[in-house]
Amino acid sequence: MKQISDVELGDKAKSSSPRSGVKKGLSILDFVLRLIAIVGTLASAVAMGTTNETLPFFTRFTRFRAEYDDLPTFTFFVVANAIVSGYLVLSLVLSFFHIVRSNAQNSRVLLIIFDAAMLGLLTAGASASAAIVYLAHNGNTNTNWFAICRQFNSFCERISGSLIGSFVGVGVFLLLILVSGLALSRR
Amino acid sequence: MKQISDVELGDKAKSSSPRSGVKKGLSILDFVLRLIAIVGTLASAVAMGTTNETLPFFTRFTRFRAEYDDLPTFTFFVVANAIVSGYLVLSLVLSFFHIVRSNAQNSRVLLIIFDAAMLGLLTAGASASAAIVYLAHNGNTNTNWFAICRQFNSFCERISGSLIGSFVGVGVFLLLILVSGLALSRR
Repeated sequence: MKQISDVELGDKAKSSSPRSGVKKGLSILDFVLRLIAIVGTLASAVAMGTTNETLPFFTRFTRFRAEYDDLPTFTFFVVANAIVSGYLVLSLVLSFFHIVRSNAQNSRVLLIIFDAAMLGLLTAGASASAAIVYLAHNGNTNTNWFAICRQFNSFCERISGSLIGSFVGVGVFLLLILVSGLALSRR
Repeated sequence: MKQISDVELGDKAKSSSPRSGVKKGLSILDFVLRLIAIVGTLASAVAMGTTNETLPFFTRFTRFRAEYDDLPTFTFFVVANAIVSGYLVLSLVLSFFHIVRSNAQNSRVLLIIFDAAMLGLLTAGASASAAIVYLAHNGNTNTNWFAICRQFNSFCERISGSLIGSFVGVGVFLLLILVSGLALSRR
């Protein structure tokens, strides 16, 4: 917050309109939020993608081993998070452009539309995985789906934890759309 | 499209700027898209909420019966769709206001932000349910989750079908944000 108000003051001093300063502050906030979302989604993708557990006992015919891609939903989760973090890295260029030229209009609208699409993709991956993780923890007696977490403890902790970064990303995207909307409404 | 261009022409005749006509056209498109989304989400909520199947055979102790709320994800699906369709009905007021006053700015930004939040909620419900429906159809051999659709045929067809309206709603929300963004960028 201190950095933003410094920028505002600095901008007020040299530019004629105080609104331009607020816009520059919002653009910097946009840039910082994107960095946070990159960390969150990338951490989620890596944490889920490297998850596996082999149980310490085995029979002659089977080893008890769980990997993230035993369940196709988790593969989708990894892909969705990877795509979104890739998009976020590319969008940093446009976000930086908004800091320099804070009166840009059309590119902000473009960013809102793409952000909304990526919000959809990320939410889809995160909530589909959350549904499966819930099932793995609690099982379902009506359908006779067994709670696999009773056996694969550390596997379950890992996949539950990797959801966090993704949901942080969803929250950040909502904030990003809010910030872009605020910047558009002030001119 | 004919209606929109009529409005544009009518508006051009009496107003000085042709941009105002385009905005009015976009506002009418916004209103129509919201009506489509209301039908989709409401149909999804009702179709899922009324789904149950009792198998024609039973033992002395159990009747084989499947209901949508056997799985908590489907309850979330119904609630999410009901909330979103309720929001859409309320948002019609603001959308109608935009047709009358096509130069409104702040209320459009407000609508984009709420639309993005509802897009998130609807996508979460739809994709979590899709993950469970996929599991019900195909099962999962790694976790010993049985494909219940082999028994509950019509139940599975019904829950699969009720996803359609919800995904149509997700698509319409992306279009709504696109339309609002376009209307904001023209002034």
